[in-house]
Amino acid sequence: MRIGIDAMGGDNAPHAVIEGVALYLNQNQDDEVVIFGDRSIIEKECAQKVQPLNKVEIVDCKEKIEFEDEPVKAIRQKKSSSIVVGLQYLKEGKIDAFVSAGSTGALMAGGLLIVGRIKGIDRPALTTRLPYKDGQYLLIDVGSNTDCRPINILQFAQMATVYVSRVLGKKNPTVGLLNIGTEENKGNDLSKQSYDLLKSAKNINFVGNVEARSLPFSPPDIVVCDGFVGNIVLKLTEGMGLLFFDILKDIAKSSFRAKIGGLLLKPYLKRLKGKYDYKEVGGAPLLGIDGIIVKCHGASDSQAIFSGIHQAKSFYKNNILALLKEEITAESEV
Amino acid sequence: MRIGIDAMGGDNAPHAVIEGVALYLNQNQDDEVVIFGDRSIIEKECAQKVQPLNKVEIVDCKEKIEFEDEPVKAIRQKKSSSIVVGLQYLKEGKIDAFVSAGSTGALMAGGLLIVGRIKGIDRPALTTRLPYKDGQYLLIDVGSNTDCRPINILQFAQMATVYVSRVLGKKNPTVGLLNIGTEENKGNDLSKQSYDLLKSAKNINFVGNVEARSLPFSPPDIVVCDGFVGNIVLKLTEGMGLLFFDILKDIAKSSFRAKIGGLLLKPYLKRLKGKYDYKEVGGAPLLGIDGIIVKCHGASDSQAIFSGIHQAKSFYKNNILALLKEEITAESEV
Repeated sequence: MRIGIDAMGGDNAPHAVIEGVALYLNQNQDDEVVIFGDRSIIEKECAQKVQPLNKVEIVDCKEKIEFEDEPVKAIRQKKSSSIVVGLQYLKEGKIDAFVSAGSTGALMAGGLLIVGRIKGIDRPALTTRLPYKDGQYLLIDVGSNTDCRPINILQFAQMATVYVSRVLGKKNPTVGLLNIGTEENKGNDLSKQSYDLLKSAKNINFVGNVEARSLPFSPPDIVVCDGFVGNIVLKLTEGMGLLFFDILKDIAKSSFRAKIGGLLLKPYLKRLKGKYDYKEVGGAPLLGIDGIIVKCHGASDSQAIFSGIHQAKSFYKNNILALLKEEITAESEV
Repeated sequence: MRIGIDAMGGDNAPHAVIEGVALYLNQNQDDEVVIFGDRSIIEKECAQKVQPLNKVEIVDCKEKIEFEDEPVKAIRQKKSSSIVVGLQYLKEGKIDAFVSAGSTGALMAGGLLIVGRIKGIDRPALTTRLPYKDGQYLLIDVGSNTDCRPINILQFAQMATVYVSRVLGKKNPTVGLLNIGTEENKGNDLSKQSYDLLKSAKNINFVGNVEARSLPFSPPDIVVCDGFVGNIVLKLTEGMGLLFFDILKDIAKSSFRAKIGGLLLKPYLKRLKGKYDYKEVGGAPLLGIDGIIVKCHGASDSQAIFSGIHQAKSFYKNNILALLKEEITAESEV
């Protein structure tokens, strides 16, 4: 397998990205990696970190798409950016997957404009796995579609069902619609109409509305919502997780008694922190693009990049693109 | 002051409601309370709990609006329900405020149909105060307007500014728009258009977009969003708060070492729990209705009802209705 990596994307690029590649190649010696980015910097980083070097190809990309750039404009104008060149390699079959911690908007725009959608998919979506008390659930969409129609929500549910059952190995995963009440008639126009579509769809295991209060305790396997709401759930979950550890740290500083208590609990809390830490969760696939694109968190460190590359490999090995093409209800069929 | 109380609303009605009234009258002996609900039950409860009894009037209401009832239909059909009769008393000036832990939808529908809006307010809104690390911020709307237009978001900001500055005593409060990025061009159609309106409004202290990740750490004084998103933020904040304590409890059970650690931290955590507990936060006013209506959480206990009555009193004493009428930008002026 040949995996493409955007060396210029994310807050800690290119160091963390190259380190993530090194971690990956250490464990996956049969794969090859193509790194897109500024050759002079990457060559130096690779020489220090990556073994064996002959598994790595560097494609020199002098431009970089910034988080502030307007996505569609950036894809059209920054022709020699790591994202544009990487996605062209993906389109042309020179790489089997593309992993990036760069601008989500640019990746989605580039995915649409350069690689193209899977036939029948109206709007590709971003997913992520979020922690709850006893495990992780999948949230879709988490930011690529800020304004949705009901057909989009249905297709998110269908795509996520394929992903969760075939990549994550959970059979017949339950699907819940994120809403502000559990009753059928609750919600905004979008959620009410989406409910009706989801209820009558045959290839998903729809279990009804799910309220945000139950997400940390007993979510369904898959939670669907529009990308605006999903992004807010993602970031609030992250923020509340950070707050928890921050508060405990402050408590432990507040007195001798609390310090001892904190020290006794430290090993337990450390394990917990791993769970509520996005780095462990890895990348989020762009479901619906006719090629494997995995988006890593903008603040990714080497471990997060490593997980993202693993996600991409799992996608490839399980032939998810073909499965998605089979399962999707096109708009004309609704 | 005469405060109306819905004795039939909420999971713990009427016991918790009557207990809340008793707590309130203990501390506010100059006020009078009008209780709406089933006379036979309420008389018995009051006789046991409330002193002095002569400060209480009971208005017999045999019907009850359930959480599952469709709000507008319930207001139109259940003419002798505690909510409908209570709001009629409010409209006719027989009470100065109405406090209920019943159906939010029915209260909002009844507020609109029976009491009416403040002139110039397009859509009344529900607010609540949510905890963050160093205090509380105000979130508006938290569920009464699931589909909004930009003018609604602007008016939410204006109403909340009056409330926070005049009732909660925070001068020139900052207003942030809940969004999925801090940059001006981020978000969905609603947030982009709302940003423009908020930016050019003169009577609010708009500080730009705010991301959900920063809500637990450094929110502005007021966070505006549509009621669908706000309700999800409210419930996810509650759920994550519950999760923390639940997790810590489990850890403390997992070994002797952890148990000791947990016991040492217990007093500190207990204080914290109060902060992340909605009961302490009290009721949420329905801003924009031409009368004082305070909605308490459906799971309110007596303490929460007590806080809700206090909120209503503060509203009345600070003459907030008149201030709201002065400050609002009507749609025609935008």
